[in-house]
Amino acid sequence: MSQLKNIFYAQSGGVTAVINSSACGVIETARSERGRIGKVYAGRNGIIGALTEDLIDTSLETKKSIAALRHTPAGAFGSCRYKLKSLDENRAEYERLIDVFRAHNIGYFFYNGGGDSADTCLKVSQLSKTTGYPIQAIHIPKTVDNDLPITDNCPGFGSVAKYIAVSTKEASFDVASMAKTSTKIFIIEVMGRHAGWIAAAGGMASSNADIPIIILFPEIEFHRGRFMEAVQRKVNKYGYCSIVVSEGVRGADGKFLSDQGLRDAFGHAQLGGAAPVIASMVKQDLDLKYHWAVADYLQRSARHIASKTDVEQAYAVGRAAVQLALQGKNSVMPAICRISNRPYRWKIIEATLARVANREKMMPRTFISRDGFGITARCRDYLEPLIRGEDYPPYRNGLPRYERLKNMPVKKKLKRAFKLS
Amino acid sequence: MSQLKNIFYAQSGGVTAVINSSACGVIETARSERGRIGKVYAGRNGIIGALTEDLIDTSLETKKSIAALRHTPAGAFGSCRYKLKSLDENRAEYERLIDVFRAHNIGYFFYNGGGDSADTCLKVSQLSKTTGYPIQAIHIPKTVDNDLPITDNCPGFGSVAKYIAVSTKEASFDVASMAKTSTKIFIIEVMGRHAGWIAAAGGMASSNADIPIIILFPEIEFHRGRFMEAVQRKVNKYGYCSIVVSEGVRGADGKFLSDQGLRDAFGHAQLGGAAPVIASMVKQDLDLKYHWAVADYLQRSARHIASKTDVEQAYAVGRAAVQLALQGKNSVMPAICRISNRPYRWKIIEATLARVANREKMMPRTFISRDGFGITARCRDYLEPLIRGEDYPPYRNGLPRYERLKNMPVKKKLKRAFKLS
Repeated sequence: MSQLKNIFYAQSGGVTAVINSSACGVIETARSERGRIGKVYAGRNGIIGALTEDLIDTSLETKKSIAALRHTPAGAFGSCRYKLKSLDENRAEYERLIDVFRAHNIGYFFYNGGGDSADTCLKVSQLSKTTGYPIQAIHIPKTVDNDLPITDNCPGFGSVAKYIAVSTKEASFDVASMAKTSTKIFIIEVMGRHAGWIAAAGGMASSNADIPIIILFPEIEFHRGRFMEAVQRKVNKYGYCSIVVSEGVRGADGKFLSDQGLRDAFGHAQLGGAAPVIASMVKQDLDLKYHWAVADYLQRSARHIASKTDVEQAYAVGRAAVQLALQGKNSVMPAICRISNRPYRWKIIEATLARVANREKMMPRTFISRDGFGITARCRDYLEPLIRGEDYPPYRNGLPRYERLKNMPVKKKLKRAFKLS
Repeated sequence: MSQLKNIFYAQSGGVTAVINSSACGVIETARSERGRIGKVYAGRNGIIGALTEDLIDTSLETKKSIAALRHTPAGAFGSCRYKLKSLDENRAEYERLIDVFRAHNIGYFFYNGGGDSADTCLKVSQLSKTTGYPIQAIHIPKTVDNDLPITDNCPGFGSVAKYIAVSTKEASFDVASMAKTSTKIFIIEVMGRHAGWIAAAGGMASSNADIPIIILFPEIEFHRGRFMEAVQRKVNKYGYCSIVVSEGVRGADGKFLSDQGLRDAFGHAQLGGAAPVIASMVKQDLDLKYHWAVADYLQRSARHIASKTDVEQAYAVGRAAVQLALQGKNSVMPAICRISNRPYRWKIIEATLARVANREKMMPRTFISRDGFGITARCRDYLEPLIRGEDYPPYRNGLPRYERLKNMPVKKKLKRAFKLS
């Protein structure tokens, strides 16, 4: 058994409602290949767990606990926002990774994250060549932003999209009832720094109901006058209007409508508050009564309304990572390939990591209506299968039963502690 | 048939995820009593529909459509915020109501709303005496605020409570995964102008999981220093903290933490934005990274995660209204009486409307922990049955199938139009 190489698995960046479904796919598949692969060690808080030799021994968790990851949101082992520098800039970090991998007989590096994590994974995949230590690095896609290239969609996105579509539909029914004497404008702010995929999902609320929705995409420059005209037209026709605004919307000056001035570890502006900005503009320009909501973490953690497609695909990319590892692959990512729309069919393909890292996939202009405020039929065709199906978690006494693992540490073997830069 | 008196039914004030379940209870029960009661006419946009003789003939809806109201959020007939003045102040309104009731052979006035609506219903119930026109006014309780007296709880509340409990649990799992290198504080703002019932529901998130939650109740004066100490203690122990803040929280000066300066038709301040205020204080005083969400209408329209108890009770008070009408009652409200906690058992009792109107039921101090930041075991015992059970709507292509009625108008009989004051 000791010759069998172990897997290091880590969750990275913002967590999702289904990232643990990928973890479940990795661990269950690795367990089913017991004769060919060793244990799955998870990094406590992502890559930091590797650097600090803080590994979690998932083999100590019961079969039932691992199965429950499939319906548990957020990151069961902890995630982090920590980007490795280039090899030239911080060689010590890479040397440390190799030390930890060697000490724990780790031959596979599975990194479950978005674009920044794909870049980290790519760098690790090159360690084999530069250091001679045999490591296969496989990236497992995850991002609510849906902005990874090559893969048709990203696990994590479908569930956020479903949450936003359902919530926008429900709130629109609400404001429609109130519009006669009270609220006429409802504004919901959604995530999506640069790509408008999540905002687009708000447009799905009108798929089988005639609901007036205006979407503000980060891909479309915000023009106050044109926006107000569009809102007023909807109000004239329907008596009310719902507005889905992406946190990443910018004006002609290139600035975010609302920038709190904070930045995360990757240097991205931390946003929040576009909804109240839009609300106050609507009040000033149209004098209509409004309500606004900011969904924030609620949208990406809402496992209670996860998309079944999303849960299945998240599991499938986790399982595929183990299969690719067993095939001896390095520097790859299992990606989702759409075979057909009706019926919706998909398969897992292998993507070269170098073609994934550091590229953002924006909404194609053909997915956005000509006026810039809605989605097209093509966009609906794309989104619809991704939000399809319900996959409810089990409940006890009114609350979902989400799993908390034991997360027992692997005994440290290195004498030296590592100081994070 | 023409001697049988018709029912006028109207929805009032803020809508909920289950107010249509009450409508369903009214209409289905009235239909089952066809030999004893006439048609159910609904007011388009609440009481305004009565004043303007804009009635909806629910007998033109199919059985299937009416049944679907049980799983459809918001107000199927439209609601309004419109409070009748006293008889002395605006006699014309009351005379108009009698004219409309008489023209359409309406003998029963069912008003589905909260405290303000109970007051309107009480005034209408007195019309029999003052005008000699026989009308039985029955109030059907509904309010997410859960602040009506006598009834153990209010239909509408249980589903909001479930939404807030589930969402707080999910977001807490999220921030727990991120806390090592990123967000340590998550703030969710919830509804509840004066009573902290909805905020209390956030505390249920920790019922079967050890989650650090601090609640800011409108009943407890906000002290910045004490609050920051409590937050820092949680962060020291858990590495993160979730904060549930009621929109109605006030400081020592008696002012809402965030008052947008707008007022609704009832003269209540329209709030929103306590969460960003708390967030910026946390940043200033503790320098911790935060995220914040404002649930707003999402919480009260979230039929997708409605409480089964709530859906059943909303239906039951609608059904009971018809039964009370047939018993010849006037100026009453069907109320929920809790018989036992384990197992949870309840029944419908009859409350005198005069004892309901214009009284708000605050959280008892025994439901709030000594430090003012949490809920007690007694509060959990009270809340737990109210959020219990799931009652999922049907879905098609990833979205809930919510009903839109035909809402055909009843032919007008009065010559005179009525101008709303």
